[in-house]
Amino acid sequence: MYRSEIKVLDCTIRDGGLINKHDFSHEFVRKVYKAVSHAGVDYMEIGYKNSKELFSPKEYGAWKFCDDEDIRQVIKGIESGTKISVMVDVGRVNLDDVKPEAESPVDMIRVASYVKDIDKAIYMVNHFADKGYETTINIMAISRDQGPALEEGLEQIEKESKAKVIYIVDSFGALYQETSEYLVKLFKKILKTKEVGFHGHNHLQLAFGNTIEAIIHNANYLDATVYGIGRAAGNCPLELLIGFLKNPKFDLRPILDLISNEFIPLREKIEWGYIIPYAIAGIMNEHPREAMALRNSDKKENYREFYESLITTDLD
Amino acid sequence: MYRSEIKVLDCTIRDGGLINKHDFSHEFVRKVYKAVSHAGVDYMEIGYKNSKELFSPKEYGAWKFCDDEDIRQVIKGIESGTKISVMVDVGRVNLDDVKPEAESPVDMIRVASYVKDIDKAIYMVNHFADKGYETTINIMAISRDQGPALEEGLEQIEKESKAKVIYIVDSFGALYQETSEYLVKLFKKILKTKEVGFHGHNHLQLAFGNTIEAIIHNANYLDATVYGIGRAAGNCPLELLIGFLKNPKFDLRPILDLISNEFIPLREKIEWGYIIPYAIAGIMNEHPREAMALRNSDKKENYREFYESLITTDLD
Repeated sequence: MYRSEIKVLDCTIRDGGLINKHDFSHEFVRKVYKAVSHAGVDYMEIGYKNSKELFSPKEYGAWKFCDDEDIRQVIKGIESGTKISVMVDVGRVNLDDVKPEAESPVDMIRVASYVKDIDKAIYMVNHFADKGYETTINIMAISRDQGPALEEGLEQIEKESKAKVIYIVDSFGALYQETSEYLVKLFKKILKTKEVGFHGHNHLQLAFGNTIEAIIHNANYLDATVYGIGRAAGNCPLELLIGFLKNPKFDLRPILDLISNEFIPLREKIEWGYIIPYAIAGIMNEHPREAMALRNSDKKENYREFYESLITTDLD
Repeated sequence: MYRSEIKVLDCTIRDGGLINKHDFSHEFVRKVYKAVSHAGVDYMEIGYKNSKELFSPKEYGAWKFCDDEDIRQVIKGIESGTKISVMVDVGRVNLDDVKPEAESPVDMIRVASYVKDIDKAIYMVNHFADKGYETTINIMAISRDQGPALEEGLEQIEKESKAKVIYIVDSFGALYQETSEYLVKLFKKILKTKEVGFHGHNHLQLAFGNTIEAIIHNANYLDATVYGIGRAAGNCPLELLIGFLKNPKFDLRPILDLISNEFIPLREKIEWGYIIPYAIAGIMNEHPREAMALRNSDKKENYREFYESLITTDLD
C-alpha cells in the first residue's frame, strides 16, 4: 500500500554542489535530470538562486545561480513529469532576479531559513507565491532549535505564509527516531493547512531511518540525493528511498545506472558519506564545518584530537 | 539517563572475519581487545568455535576455531572488564571440543540458529550452560521467518532452554523500524524470563537506526562492530552506538584511535559497507551471497543487470 500524497524531491545537484561549489557540467546535470525523470521522481532541485553580487560566477559553478537559460539547456528535449525546484537562502537572493513563474522553467522555490529568520522567510515565500511558484520554507539546524521560538515561528508560518510545505531540516545530522517523531508531530499539529517535509543528513547513518520515521508520522515531502551525495556525510540516498516506497510509478533502474556510470567515478574525486569526523559532529550536535576543515587538512584521520577539541571547547 | 541493563557486545572479529576467512593476526585481535576493553564494552566476540573436521585450519585463520590457547595469547596482561564470547553454528561444532567454563577464557557461547533448527539450538545451549557458560540463541534470517513457526520456537525456548539472551538477527539487513519494533515486542511478550538482543546488518543503512529502535522497546543486548565491519554491508558501527548510549562507563576515544590506526588501512584491503548490490539485496530481502559474488567479479558495478537478475528469478 502506498500513500499517493508522498512526493520525492531529488536535491543531488543542490546539496551535492555544496561539496564542489556547484561546479557540475551541464552534461552531468542533464544526466541526473534524465535519470530522476525516468525514475518517476516528483521534483528535482537543481541548485541555488544566489545573487551574483554576493557570490562571484568566477568562483562558483552555474548551479549556484540557476539562471533560467542554464536550466533550459539541461532539461531541453527530455520527456519528464519531474518539476524543477531551486533553493534560496534568506538574505542571499535578489528578488528582482526571479521572473514570474510563467516565464521561467522553475516550478518551485524553497526558502531555507533558521528559526530566527522566519519573518524574512515568510516575506520571501509570499513574494514568490505571488509570482506563481509553489513555495516551501525549510527550517534549518532544527536539532538545535526546538524551543518555544520554533513553535511561535510555526504558528506564524501557518497564519501568515503562502508556503505549501514546511520542511524539517536536520542540518547537523543529529536527529534520531524519537526526535524526528516529536518534530513531525509538532509540525503536523501546528501547520494544519500545510504539508510537512523532511530533509535528513547522514552523519549518524540515520538519514534514511529518520526519513522513514517521518513517513510513518505523515510527512509527505521527502528529500533525497543520488548515492547520498551532499555536504559532509551527505543525505538520504534516493535509491534506498525509492526502493522502500511502494508507489509503482517509481523505477529504481535509471538511478542504478546513474550511480554505476557517474557517481562511482565522481566519489573518487570528491568526498562525502560515512566518515568519522562527521559522525563525531553528529554525536555532538555540531555544524560539520570544523569536520570539513579537518578533512581538508593533513590531520584528516586524527579523530581523537578532533573529538577532544570539541569536548574541551569552553562554552561560557 | 541510561538503562544499566544495557550490554554492548563487540563482534568485530567474529562478523568481520566472514570477509577474510577469520585470518586476523593475533596482534590485530589483541589491539581490538585492548580498545574495546578501554572503551567499556561489555563483551567481545572473538570468533567462531568450528569443528576442524568440517573446516581446514589451512584454509581459515585462528578465529574460525577459537582455541582457548589463541584467546589466552591475545588477552594476556590486558586489564579488562570485557567478557569473551564465541559463536557456534548449529551442526558445525564438536561439543566435546568445549571445555568447562572454569578451564576456559571464554565466558559466553552464542548459538546461531535458523528457526527450523531451534530444537538443536536448545540442546546445545543447555549443554554449554551445564558446562558453566552464559549462553544465548541468535535467531538468524528473521526477516524471512516471522510466521507461526517463530512464535512456536520462542515458546519452546522460553520453556526448555537455559539461554539468558535471545537475539533477533537481521541477517539480510531487511528490517526497518516498524518490523524491528514488532519483533522486539513479540520476543519480549513470549520470552518472559529472558533478555532480548539485537544484531543488525547495514544493507539499507538501518543497522544503527534499528538498534536504537530495539533499545526503545527494551532490548538490552546490542551487537556492534568497529567501523561497522562485517559481512557484506557490515553491522551497526560500535562508535555510533557508544556515542549514542548515555552510560558514563563508555569511552569513545580508544575506538576512534583503533579506527584511525587500524581500520582505515584495513578498509583499503578488504571491502564492507554501503555498496549498491548489498542495498539491492536488502531491498529484495535476499541473502547477500549473490551480491558478494558480484563484488568479486568483473561486473562489480553493473547494478542494473544484478537487480534485474533478482526481479526476474522465477520462484515457482
